[in-house]
Amino acid sequence: MSTPPILEQLRPYTQAVEEEIADVIRSAAGEDARGLYRMLEYHLGWVEADGTPVPEDARRSFAGKRLRPALCLLFCELAGGDWRSALPAAAAVELIHSFSLIHDDVEDGDETRHHRPTVWAVWGVNHAVNSGSNAQALVCTAALRCSLRGHADHLVLAVVRRLTEAVLRMTEGQYLDMRLEGGRIPDLHTHQTMVKGKTCALLSAACGIGWLLGDKSCDEDRLAQAEAFGEALGLAFQARDDILGTWGDASVTGKPVGSDLLRRKKTLPVVLAYQAASGDQRRQMERFFTKRTPSPAAAAAILELLESLGAREATQCEAERLASDAYARLEMLRPADGDETRTAAYDMIRSIVGFVLERDR
Amino acid sequence: MSTPPILEQLRPYTQAVEEEIADVIRSAAGEDARGLYRMLEYHLGWVEADGTPVPEDARRSFAGKRLRPALCLLFCELAGGDWRSALPAAAAVELIHSFSLIHDDVEDGDETRHHRPTVWAVWGVNHAVNSGSNAQALVCTAALRCSLRGHADHLVLAVVRRLTEAVLRMTEGQYLDMRLEGGRIPDLHTHQTMVKGKTCALLSAACGIGWLLGDKSCDEDRLAQAEAFGEALGLAFQARDDILGTWGDASVTGKPVGSDLLRRKKTLPVVLAYQAASGDQRRQMERFFTKRTPSPAAAAAILELLESLGAREATQCEAERLASDAYARLEMLRPADGDETRTAAYDMIRSIVGFVLERDR
Repeated sequence: MSTPPILEQLRPYTQAVEEEIADVIRSAAGEDARGLYRMLEYHLGWVEADGTPVPEDARRSFAGKRLRPALCLLFCELAGGDWRSALPAAAAVELIHSFSLIHDDVEDGDETRHHRPTVWAVWGVNHAVNSGSNAQALVCTAALRCSLRGHADHLVLAVVRRLTEAVLRMTEGQYLDMRLEGGRIPDLHTHQTMVKGKTCALLSAACGIGWLLGDKSCDEDRLAQAEAFGEALGLAFQARDDILGTWGDASVTGKPVGSDLLRRKKTLPVVLAYQAASGDQRRQMERFFTKRTPSPAAAAAILELLESLGAREATQCEAERLASDAYARLEMLRPADGDETRTAAYDMIRSIVGFVLERDR
Repeated sequence: MSTPPILEQLRPYTQAVEEEIADVIRSAAGEDARGLYRMLEYHLGWVEADGTPVPEDARRSFAGKRLRPALCLLFCELAGGDWRSALPAAAAVELIHSFSLIHDDVEDGDETRHHRPTVWAVWGVNHAVNSGSNAQALVCTAALRCSLRGHADHLVLAVVRRLTEAVLRMTEGQYLDMRLEGGRIPDLHTHQTMVKGKTCALLSAACGIGWLLGDKSCDEDRLAQAEAFGEALGLAFQARDDILGTWGDASVTGKPVGSDLLRRKKTLPVVLAYQAASGDQRRQMERFFTKRTPSPAAAAAILELLESLGAREATQCEAERLASDAYARLEMLRPADGDETRTAAYDMIRSIVGFVLERDR
């Protein structure tokens, strides 16, 4: 499996994030509770369940792509700041992502992630809930380290405020998502509200916080553009994620085939197919999505229905429209000609949008 | 059930905390996710599961005693500050307590608390995990409101730092506690390490943060005394809690009889009894505490053994010793004669120690 060029380009940034998170854990961990922090380190892909370190090159296949913290650092650079000064905030962003995944895996009953058993599958639900809370507290530990990088107190508070808002919106999105499971198929607006919470809030915060820490001029309008970019990217990201969760190759995504359907997730393809469906087809979908334990055969029939209604193309089309929106927001933040550092950051952010749209895992 | 006088005296403080938490929730809640915040409001004893408001006078029997936020406010007053200025911090302290209980009830499998079904028992484990995360995020929302009460940015950051430390220590304590379940009976030192995390960290933070916000002179030594008081009180509180969890009257405590034993909790009476036990008795205890599902009959036999080894008296004696330590720490912060407001706060804090030691629920 070759690594996409943009992920190679991001390596110096994501590597620095890993080191910052390691410092956060080192600074926080009480000596009697090393085993608690090991659960997070396992989730991050750094160690095996027994604590054995994972070799550097194997880590990547166990870990996420670290796009959120990378965006935080790149937006700091795009705004004219030193990206290293945003490392504590980027670490905080990744820790939010980590704790929410540890909890989401419990809530969704997912037994594997990135080709390994999830935290609850290894240590049980109780330890996973506690480990998630612990990682959530580390978000603040990380954010407060912005002071060590020379940021003024009011900026550190602004970072904490934005991170907190993101977590609130994420838990609201997760609440809506769980409520939709087993319930009616929502309209596009309700679906988007849920995605804005679950996926966009953190991406938007990552970009906004990066910009905030890098922009000496404190331009509110441009900060808002950075946040709006994150939101558009989040919607595009989720649309692509929904395609992968419905039609993706399990050996590549690391998630079971049709897993979203079997969990009766009201993904974008489902919402769009329902809009296009006839009365009979709608009833077929409603029956499936309100059943407690849908059979794989019923899921296969729904998959066929989604295909025949053009939901796959419609979703990809929507993802592309959202990506265009993201490009347009980014365009407003394009640096002046000749500013090489900022232009490099700009180009990498553009590449991330392209990657999100075309990724197969 | 008559209310102890000190709880009546604290009413203006605890009532103001309830209002502050309500404001925090109002300021944070997205309109599409009211149902998520309702879970917290239910846990706090404000509403029924369907959202019906609980009448003012019935709330108390569903709610905790709010001793932690009250201590935060009283230490602010004792240090010479206006206690109302510490309300956001006190709300944050209570929210830490709330989210940790929502998660602890999941982890311990407890189905009732304060005579009502726990959050997970009403809405299921998944919603409870998510509701706990949401309440944990509200801790920061509350803490950041210290700015609204005129506190300088560096103080607000100091509050966030102390709250974060408390949550880290609490999750470490919970980790140690869960590891001890089903394992060997620990020595007194290991037991104390666990209690310092689970119980003392938040009480110590509550007192320290209150002092910090009230003390204009920023006296580090006296701040450390306030924190040390909280730790000693926490140890005393837990010792008393262990007595109630082992020998308490279920109709008063709202917890099942012998629940700590049935859950194989390594409480202080167990640790002290084990120290005093003969070889045979130790083996009996070891057999019981490493069994997966101990029978009520076996639990009754262990209860008898604990009694015969004098564990009940030894634990109460230890609780009293710890309370004396707390009194001694508090003595160092005694206000000058004639300062009525501070002396009133001092006296109420003393009464809280007495209440903690003698309470039956």
